[in-house]
Amino acid sequence: MTIETLSTVRSHGGTQGVYKHASTTTGTDMSFAVFVPDHEDGAKLPVLWYLSGLTCTHANVVEKGEYRAACAEHGVIFIAPDTSPRGEGVPDDPDAAYDFGLGAGFYVDATAEPWAKNYRMRSYIEDELPSLILRNFASADLKRQAITGHSMGGHGALTIGLRGQDRFRSVSAFSPIVAPSRCPWGEKALTGYLGDDREDWHAYDACALLDQGLRVPDLLVDQGDADNFRAEQLKTELLVEACERNGQKADIRMQPGYDHSYYFISTFMAEHVAWHAERLKA
Amino acid sequence: MTIETLSTVRSHGGTQGVYKHASTTTGTDMSFAVFVPDHEDGAKLPVLWYLSGLTCTHANVVEKGEYRAACAEHGVIFIAPDTSPRGEGVPDDPDAAYDFGLGAGFYVDATAEPWAKNYRMRSYIEDELPSLILRNFASADLKRQAITGHSMGGHGALTIGLRGQDRFRSVSAFSPIVAPSRCPWGEKALTGYLGDDREDWHAYDACALLDQGLRVPDLLVDQGDADNFRAEQLKTELLVEACERNGQKADIRMQPGYDHSYYFISTFMAEHVAWHAERLKA
Repeated sequence: MTIETLSTVRSHGGTQGVYKHASTTTGTDMSFAVFVPDHEDGAKLPVLWYLSGLTCTHANVVEKGEYRAACAEHGVIFIAPDTSPRGEGVPDDPDAAYDFGLGAGFYVDATAEPWAKNYRMRSYIEDELPSLILRNFASADLKRQAITGHSMGGHGALTIGLRGQDRFRSVSAFSPIVAPSRCPWGEKALTGYLGDDREDWHAYDACALLDQGLRVPDLLVDQGDADNFRAEQLKTELLVEACERNGQKADIRMQPGYDHSYYFISTFMAEHVAWHAERLKA
Repeated sequence: MTIETLSTVRSHGGTQGVYKHASTTTGTDMSFAVFVPDHEDGAKLPVLWYLSGLTCTHANVVEKGEYRAACAEHGVIFIAPDTSPRGEGVPDDPDAAYDFGLGAGFYVDATAEPWAKNYRMRSYIEDELPSLILRNFASADLKRQAITGHSMGGHGALTIGLRGQDRFRSVSAFSPIVAPSRCPWGEKALTGYLGDDREDWHAYDACALLDQGLRVPDLLVDQGDADNFRAEQLKTELLVEACERNGQKADIRMQPGYDHSYYFISTFMAEHVAWHAERLKA
């Protein structure tokens, strides 16, 4: 489990790195970004995972996410994985659609062909990448983890957070897809990666997981009310109802005038980092 | 003097817009970005100009500059112009070099052919764009202006700041080219745009302007010591010496480990905005 350093640069009192490794889970090379704030020798820092949305790689949040100042202030390591396997031999949507295949792994372990071999982003985020971080980043304290994400990555954060209850002290999301079983993006992805049996989809639907009794310690969600995808794809109200119905502690905020872009994410990023830091250091 | 709105988006408690107009100065369409923090009806906000570096448009700082949170906090309007004329009929470097022609206007009024007709970024920044802002942005208080910039744009901020002494209450720069008469980027640009007579170059050389007796009210400069362009192109030490020699008040800071990129600029952007805001509101 060796990693190759693609770049490191000093920023906001820390080191922003981009790394590559041969993933046994996806059968491909995978890239990811890690920001490590300056710290004393031997210090252990809590970790915040950020899962990106459709079409993105690690690079979008690294360039536009505005997380480094807050992570440096609070002493939090920030890890941004890719959104799908990539490379020669990795199948893509036949029409190269933006919402399936490359850049659209949906944080599932695919069971349908031809996706099952490479499209295993669930296991990659749940198992392989944490192990890799543990072995290669001495300052990362994996006893203190939190997770967030945007859109498809918000779906990833919610579902990986709910299923991995002991792993994360806090879960947040920016404009997440809250019920992929009940929106076009999700129905297309889950049908494609998992097949037609909707029972198999429940593990990848935050609202369904809440109804099954899974919980996270605390949940923060921001959603822009001018987000073009809100009504058809994101359906924030379903998460509000599922949290109320199931007694899940949650602060789900509608932000007036904000859209789906990094102009929105960057606006609330520092608040999310501070919110996670408070729980990671409690 | 009408402007066309290309886009507006809500971000960090304000409006990030991109606009276009037909410039009489450059004879081309010109684009620029303006961030206006939310404010009470009728309120007047001070203005911070940001001049970008080689190869950039307004978009680089808009996406990577991390200025909006600080501008919203301090109630400062942030204006980012383009770095050169562009469009059909605008001459470019015959080899399409990155350091001359398109994206490399160097904030001069060219006198040599074929550049003299379009490459008039000095007059554009000094005269036309401020007039346009005054007429189209009711909240912009042009009695309270400050200017900053990066690299070639740091050169622009210093020279436009020094020549326009009454216009700006404060001037700052990120890794500026401090003496274009004495570095390869500057010698190429000034020869190309102005011709061989070095006397004509002085108006575009911050160190020469200081030696001629021009001053700014206050000056802040940040420079990364791991910046690859420092020794050959930027020559920060010449500015330190010129300020000392001429009694120019200045805080010129060497930042250990930082390079020439937006990872560096974004790190110190909030400090520059706060520094300008203090002077703009004094």
